[in-house]
Amino acid sequence: MDKIEKYRQLIQKILIEHSQIETTTDTDKVKSELIFDHERDHYQLAYVGWQGDKRVFGPVMHFDIEDGKIWIQYNGTEESVAQRLVDMGVPPSDIVIGFHSSFKRQFTPYAVG
Amino acid sequence: MDKIEKYRQLIQKILIEHSQIETTTDTDKVKSELIFDHERDHYQLAYVGWQGDKRVFGPVMHFDIEDGKIWIQYNGTEESVAQRLVDMGVPPSDIVIGFHSSFKRQFTPYAVG
Repeated sequence: MDKIEKYRQLIQKILIEHSQIETTTDTDKVKSELIFDHERDHYQLAYVGWQGDKRVFGPVMHFDIEDGKIWIQYNGTEESVAQRLVDMGVPPSDIVIGFHSSFKRQFTPYAVG
Repeated sequence: MDKIEKYRQLIQKILIEHSQIETTTDTDKVKSELIFDHERDHYQLAYVGWQGDKRVFGPVMHFDIEDGKIWIQYNGTEESVAQRLVDMGVPPSDIVIGFHSSFKRQFTPYAVG
């Protein structure tokens, strides 16, 4: 399997796992939506629905693949997904923390961009 | 073209149009990301990047197709996309405003769900 295809699989595995975490009671109507765009290499998990009379809508986690690197654009979970990707065999030099400024990125073990 | 395929095309047309609206100056680094998942019928436009030292991340517009209906789950633009869909030939009974409560939806010309 080539590198990019492997990265796609890892990202989708992480998102699918998080989509299966039970966050709502059965009286609630909030769905986990997986949005996988293989053509543009954008991958997101979002929560969509209603919790009683409160609207729920928003991304939970969002990854892109660009120029052979995985960009973590958003992570609303407690899991360190960058570390998780490293544990899965992705070199830190292929991981960009998009929500850190490029200034801050140079002081992390991950890529600047 | 069958109905669902037509709805997919209309949704993508609207999102592509909005993705082309220039929102940033050329010193900024904010990208419009189209995320089209044809398999799960989730469609989103998001802005991702940095505006100077300010992080930009978030959906701009989000549609789902479910049980033959178009769900407008989020609309961060000034365009009335429900009206736009009607103008494109979608019957109001096939449009659900997801961000209105189901109570409120019964008082609109659109579907309850």
